[in-house]
Amino acid sequence: MAKQRTAITPTREENFPEWYQAVVKGADMAENSPTRGCMIIKPWGYALWEKMQKILDTKFKETGHENAYFPLLIPLSFMAKEAEHVDGFAKECAVVTHHRLEGDGKGGLKPAGKLEEPYIIRPTSEMIIGDAMAKWIQSYRDLPIKLNQWANVMRWEMRTRLFLRTSEFLWQEGHTVHSTATEAKEETDTMLGVYKWFMEEYLATPVFDGEKTPEETFPGAEHTYTVEALMQSKKALQNGTSHYMGQNFAKGCGIEFTNKDGDLEHAYTTSWGVSTRMIGGLIMTHSDDDGLVLPPKIAPKHVVILPFLGKDTDDDVLDACHKLKNKIEKLQFNGEKIEVVIDASEKNAGQKSWDWVRKGIPLRIMIGPKDLEKNSFVLTRRDKPANEKQFLDMETGTGNFPDILEEMQKNILEKAMKFRDENITEVSSIDEFKNIFDLKKDDPGFVVCYADSELNEEREELLKELKATARCIPFAFNENNEEKTCIFSGKKTSTKIIYARAY
Amino acid sequence: MAKQRTAITPTREENFPEWYQAVVKGADMAENSPTRGCMIIKPWGYALWEKMQKILDTKFKETGHENAYFPLLIPLSFMAKEAEHVDGFAKECAVVTHHRLEGDGKGGLKPAGKLEEPYIIRPTSEMIIGDAMAKWIQSYRDLPIKLNQWANVMRWEMRTRLFLRTSEFLWQEGHTVHSTATEAKEETDTMLGVYKWFMEEYLATPVFDGEKTPEETFPGAEHTYTVEALMQSKKALQNGTSHYMGQNFAKGCGIEFTNKDGDLEHAYTTSWGVSTRMIGGLIMTHSDDDGLVLPPKIAPKHVVILPFLGKDTDDDVLDACHKLKNKIEKLQFNGEKIEVVIDASEKNAGQKSWDWVRKGIPLRIMIGPKDLEKNSFVLTRRDKPANEKQFLDMETGTGNFPDILEEMQKNILEKAMKFRDENITEVSSIDEFKNIFDLKKDDPGFVVCYADSELNEEREELLKELKATARCIPFAFNENNEEKTCIFSGKKTSTKIIYARAY
Repeated sequence: MAKQRTAITPTREENFPEWYQAVVKGADMAENSPTRGCMIIKPWGYALWEKMQKILDTKFKETGHENAYFPLLIPLSFMAKEAEHVDGFAKECAVVTHHRLEGDGKGGLKPAGKLEEPYIIRPTSEMIIGDAMAKWIQSYRDLPIKLNQWANVMRWEMRTRLFLRTSEFLWQEGHTVHSTATEAKEETDTMLGVYKWFMEEYLATPVFDGEKTPEETFPGAEHTYTVEALMQSKKALQNGTSHYMGQNFAKGCGIEFTNKDGDLEHAYTTSWGVSTRMIGGLIMTHSDDDGLVLPPKIAPKHVVILPFLGKDTDDDVLDACHKLKNKIEKLQFNGEKIEVVIDASEKNAGQKSWDWVRKGIPLRIMIGPKDLEKNSFVLTRRDKPANEKQFLDMETGTGNFPDILEEMQKNILEKAMKFRDENITEVSSIDEFKNIFDLKKDDPGFVVCYADSELNEEREELLKELKATARCIPFAFNENNEEKTCIFSGKKTSTKIIYARAY
Repeated sequence: MAKQRTAITPTREENFPEWYQAVVKGADMAENSPTRGCMIIKPWGYALWEKMQKILDTKFKETGHENAYFPLLIPLSFMAKEAEHVDGFAKECAVVTHHRLEGDGKGGLKPAGKLEEPYIIRPTSEMIIGDAMAKWIQSYRDLPIKLNQWANVMRWEMRTRLFLRTSEFLWQEGHTVHSTATEAKEETDTMLGVYKWFMEEYLATPVFDGEKTPEETFPGAEHTYTVEALMQSKKALQNGTSHYMGQNFAKGCGIEFTNKDGDLEHAYTTSWGVSTRMIGGLIMTHSDDDGLVLPPKIAPKHVVILPFLGKDTDDDVLDACHKLKNKIEKLQFNGEKIEVVIDASEKNAGQKSWDWVRKGIPLRIMIGPKDLEKNSFVLTRRDKPANEKQFLDMETGTGNFPDILEEMQKNILEKAMKFRDENITEVSSIDEFKNIFDLKKDDPGFVVCYADSELNEEREELLKELKATARCIPFAFNENNEEKTCIFSGKKTSTKIIYARAY
């Protein structure tokens, strides 16, 4: 049988990393920039980020958070306030050392105006926000403070990949301060829950929520919680994290308050974040060999109308397109207007249609002079073969669009869930573990085993060799306290850990 | 007569710059940070920015623009592509020269990993966006491209003032590319119109739109258009600009396209922007000696409910507050839900009420046990004396809130318009000009005169001495072509220029 032609070359099976780059390019979402390791997010990619922002921002506000904005540049001395924190970021900091340019005498420019104290571009804002919180907080009456910031951050990465790992990326970082450990822990849980809800409900991406093992915990945090997704490459992706800092950062930044008994106490802090990395995860979870697949609830546009323009009938066809657009935009999907775009660009019809397939738009409508005669239009769906057409009546054919979109959302989640669940393997010995992570084989998906979370050198060495990492101690697999043997140490443990190769 | 006590000290009359700082502080909008010249935008200030963003962003999209995101860091060599442009920014660039930190041997940290080519933090993104556009554009079919970016930018300022002039600020920058000069000029006009509409309709701030004189034109632009507002200090504030670049930037960046005749041509570009500076302008236009005054259409919240809590009646009072909140939030103002906040914090009632006066919230509602007995509440308005109370029925008293807010919006604009118009003086000789700008007198507001726009050294010297600047050639005063004498050169001219001292 002849190989089916696909809109994306290579296919996932042929070369997953190259397929990924081709999907991003084919959907016109982002590209590399002349600035090392930094990307340009193009309108289709940015619209996706805006939609993610809108949904999350609404939820953050509903859960009692306010937005604020803190400086991009952090004085170098601030970085040293929390030892683990600085270790975590020192190797990847962009450093500002000068504040103007002057001629270099060779017709070019050179840095001038050396700063007394250098600044680093924020890799995260814990320290500068902590410094402000320390000034704002005196009494338990000032607590809790629950802030969020939407911002760009910079971590100088050596190997970068669009959306997944770039030196500059966009994210949100929540930072909260509480008067009790209990309340701060609840906050950490709540926000992890918000992420899980968002990923499953909107991104149609099933995630395991759980705690990170000590070696994967955020520098300076007491506990880091994560939501871990499985990509079609069978590699894992950390899609968001929520950190309980205990009093560590409060001590580093001097966040103290007078409690109800009149005693001075260090506060309890949390932080939590998701980034443009989620876009990379979304692509690798759902897209196929024809390009991007968007769950309708996160799609910036739901429907594209493609007029087939003849010579004499252009105006009639365009009129019909606009009428249909208005009709569809009166419909609601997931509590919002269905978003429709008309693409009347000069490209030929086939090329245009494929462009929109690659962009992952859920529904494509084609209207030409002949359709107009029959008062009908042609509908194709992103979740069906590109040549599977439905001929629908212009008056009544759009009525069930909300149901179709709902169904697509559901199917996309179910498909991802099925894939994820089929790629979880439970192993009960170190040999099985070594065998499944054999570097000569494909990546194994999620590998679950009994394992205590005390990492020793031997286990660290083994994991490094197998290119495996502990993704998390998933809540779902740690509901009972049955004790078994840790496959690494041989000690008794009730802890199950998910391992995987990861992005 | 005893002096009325005010919530802000000093008053505008006593010391306008200090009053400004006190208003920002009193409303808890922003504060200085440990990073030189950079501010922390606190939730109340940031909520205002978010509201501005939302309204403008919707309008940008309605006028055919898409959002995108370009790198924060610009390679140094890019700055040199357009000579005037680099001159305009070289003296205030933050320069990144290293990409990691290492121990300095004295327990501290120092920059390490020197970059081969330094980067500057964007003072504006013309050059990096231009470079991308050059790659994207081949044919007239690729045009126009109409992009906008919401971003942080950095210009290393020596003297800074919260919102008005800070080293880092938040803004939007529109960048568009067109195939004809006519279309690009139309774009420049359209966006200037959007700004004027936004400032008058939402910020209740009357502005003069007009062209900048050559010396005030953006580095590298052919024409710069501006919207100029008058502050209560009688100083001017440039509230937004729209630039027609002609082919200058296209030449610098190599943006060429094949036109319909098959010839290669440089494209025509525009850029336009407004920033968090508008918040400073909003404060100085409307606020009074009791603090911030917010036009209701831009207020993040419209109504605060302040429960007077007794001992036994707390629950009843709070219940009544929540019922009232729900009732009011069903009302629409300017096409959106009226936003209500309940402040049940532990502060005493008087302090709480004054806090919200200083925050500029349009309407304050007080409810205590006694009001509850009478099934009524107390209403005070930000545009009336703080002690002018209305006692209103709990069931019917909120019905006209939309009308009250509409009326407040109108009154605030009219008041600002009246002040602005009362502070425009037309002068017809250089002596009058010198006299009105006498440094021993108060700032004179807007000073209009016939003046050609060819700046010579003598006029430049005079303006510098008087601390006056040409604000713009306002459209409103340049509608007829009557020729008179330029007060500076003595030559015939039909041009009228507005001069003022400015922020």
